[in-house]
Amino acid sequence: MLYFDNAATTKPSETAFSRARAFALEQFYNPSALYNEGYALQSELKKARSALLSKVADESAFELVFTSCGTESDNQAIFGFAKRGNAVTTAGEHSAVSAPFAELKNRGVIEPRIAPLQKDGRVDVSALLALVDEKTSFVSVMHVNNEVGAINDINAIAKAVKAKNPRVIFHSDGVQAYGKIPVRLSKDVDLYSISAHKIGGLKGVGALIKRKSLVLPPYLIGGGQESGRRSGTENVFGIMQFAYAAEEKFSTLKADFERLTTLRERLWEGLDKSVYTRISAMDGTPYILSVSAVGLRGEVLLHMANDKGLIVGTGSACSSNAKSRYSKIVLACGYDEKTADGTLRLSFSPTTTLEEVQKAVTILNEIGQDLTRRMK
Amino acid sequence: MLYFDNAATTKPSETAFSRARAFALEQFYNPSALYNEGYALQSELKKARSALLSKVADESAFELVFTSCGTESDNQAIFGFAKRGNAVTTAGEHSAVSAPFAELKNRGVIEPRIAPLQKDGRVDVSALLALVDEKTSFVSVMHVNNEVGAINDINAIAKAVKAKNPRVIFHSDGVQAYGKIPVRLSKDVDLYSISAHKIGGLKGVGALIKRKSLVLPPYLIGGGQESGRRSGTENVFGIMQFAYAAEEKFSTLKADFERLTTLRERLWEGLDKSVYTRISAMDGTPYILSVSAVGLRGEVLLHMANDKGLIVGTGSACSSNAKSRYSKIVLACGYDEKTADGTLRLSFSPTTTLEEVQKAVTILNEIGQDLTRRMK
Repeated sequence: MLYFDNAATTKPSETAFSRARAFALEQFYNPSALYNEGYALQSELKKARSALLSKVADESAFELVFTSCGTESDNQAIFGFAKRGNAVTTAGEHSAVSAPFAELKNRGVIEPRIAPLQKDGRVDVSALLALVDEKTSFVSVMHVNNEVGAINDINAIAKAVKAKNPRVIFHSDGVQAYGKIPVRLSKDVDLYSISAHKIGGLKGVGALIKRKSLVLPPYLIGGGQESGRRSGTENVFGIMQFAYAAEEKFSTLKADFERLTTLRERLWEGLDKSVYTRISAMDGTPYILSVSAVGLRGEVLLHMANDKGLIVGTGSACSSNAKSRYSKIVLACGYDEKTADGTLRLSFSPTTTLEEVQKAVTILNEIGQDLTRRMK
Repeated sequence: MLYFDNAATTKPSETAFSRARAFALEQFYNPSALYNEGYALQSELKKARSALLSKVADESAFELVFTSCGTESDNQAIFGFAKRGNAVTTAGEHSAVSAPFAELKNRGVIEPRIAPLQKDGRVDVSALLALVDEKTSFVSVMHVNNEVGAINDINAIAKAVKAKNPRVIFHSDGVQAYGKIPVRLSKDVDLYSISAHKIGGLKGVGALIKRKSLVLPPYLIGGGQESGRRSGTENVFGIMQFAYAAEEKFSTLKADFERLTTLRERLWEGLDKSVYTRISAMDGTPYILSVSAVGLRGEVLLHMANDKGLIVGTGSACSSNAKSRYSKIVLACGYDEKTADGTLRLSFSPTTTLEEVQKAVTILNEIGQDLTRRMK
């Protein structure tokens, strides 16, 4: 099976799984327990926390709270800080951000303001800044778009936002960026969401990185784990596996970035341009290539590819629950419905090979040409 | 190491871990994906859901939503339904229930009403019913107390509550009951929280069982997973391991119940009565024996035991984050501070042997006598 849906989820690292196994089956203790075996796990969690955090942020200024997924991290950030006045986000956000904004609007808690995207999928920064005023309490701008791969310069955006209103809490969903593109969080970024299963970790593990001086309200309340910021017994095995997987990913981040940029372009070069139009910009993440078979249905192509042993996505896997036919992100980039409907997302992992790319090209061209003929 | 803190967490089943392994490393797909491999996982999750649910409830009347832990299940139930008037709970609840009640009080959302416990740790049902009135929107009564092991007859309590006010939503925290004591949820129970890691599952997996006709507000909002009731990519590996572990637990539930009742009594019989007073009632869960070395400090005994290779608890491991010296549960049973301070919780698993019990008795008597001498 040729797997080109790594933005939906990646194959967990077997090495990291094996290394973490003892934390499931041997050191299985409760990390809140008062005996030595419990304390020892707190110390392991501390090491994992530090390892995961130090990859993208200065440990003297930031800290990391473990959660159960990127969605929980986003929810905790948004429900914790978007409490007054208006809150600003972008039209490109994952539903883990856009849905809580919609919920806060329904509850009448805040006035949500949605900044438009540029054609390349990045937020229109001028438009975003125009939405920020003295009543803005919270701004959320995703780092890497999960459908088209556009990269927002969150440090620069955060800086500009703070220049306009220094009291704003600035959050970024970094789920598709962490471990994949180089970043160091600047002091203007207050909150940053990450997820394990996008980089070789297991599903069910995420984290919220926060500025140390920020008081983060807990979203899950109970036993007071994670220094009172996230109750619930810590998922030690999942956390350790995440830390080990991240160690692997970050050790080859730069090389992977360069190699996948080449592979992404090889894939694009191979595609039949009479069928496929490129949506992803050249300067987006090398992990995602979004294309559209304009006039065809992406979902039909997805199933045809599947039958030939190629797995691709049509957009966010999470959107499949929404039953909406069109990618709202591609529409937000300014494309028409035909283009949105024909969208395929091809997403890579460091293990993707040139041979796999070549096979994928062959299949994509075959099915694209085949469906085009059938549609005539 | 003699492990007698199974109420804090249990060793995950290695068999279940091995059986589920392929869902981490081979069928690692995103269950929301539209291709065959994604659908196939939805079908596996459906089987797991059904298996876990059918053990304690009628599938025609109830359904099950996966969460990341018992705490999340409790939080979702409480924040979802304790929204108006007053809400009633007990003085015996785990912090995953009592803390959200306190939070709702702080927010001014509801008036919390706390029913007292009897000496045996069960809720005083008459007192509880006296707190329920026409303005009560929500009632939460834990099934098995996590510190002293008392079993509340939740079906009978729910029935009596509904007789007084049929509009009440009735929730029970079943974390220490599920897979350990026999139960079939009656139609009067609306919501029931369970957790994987208390019965041989992994940390990071829980579920909320709900009456089908009840509209459950999501607590994590985003991609709409779990039929819109809990967003976030499903923790497939953890869920499958939970289902397999539960299969094992339920297959021997009755035999384990009887054997552990005997072991619990053997442990109690062996203890030096000049040191230890029994707190757990005879008719509580066989998985927990709470005793107090009145006049000594439980925490000191815990560390002395630890040094001799015996792991015990002093109460809820989760409470250790609260830095409160006394078990609030033991105090709520009507014991004095000296008794609460001397409390040790000895908790069992189906793998606990008579030999381990005998060794634990020897160590507990040694350290209890030793510390008594030193205190004189």
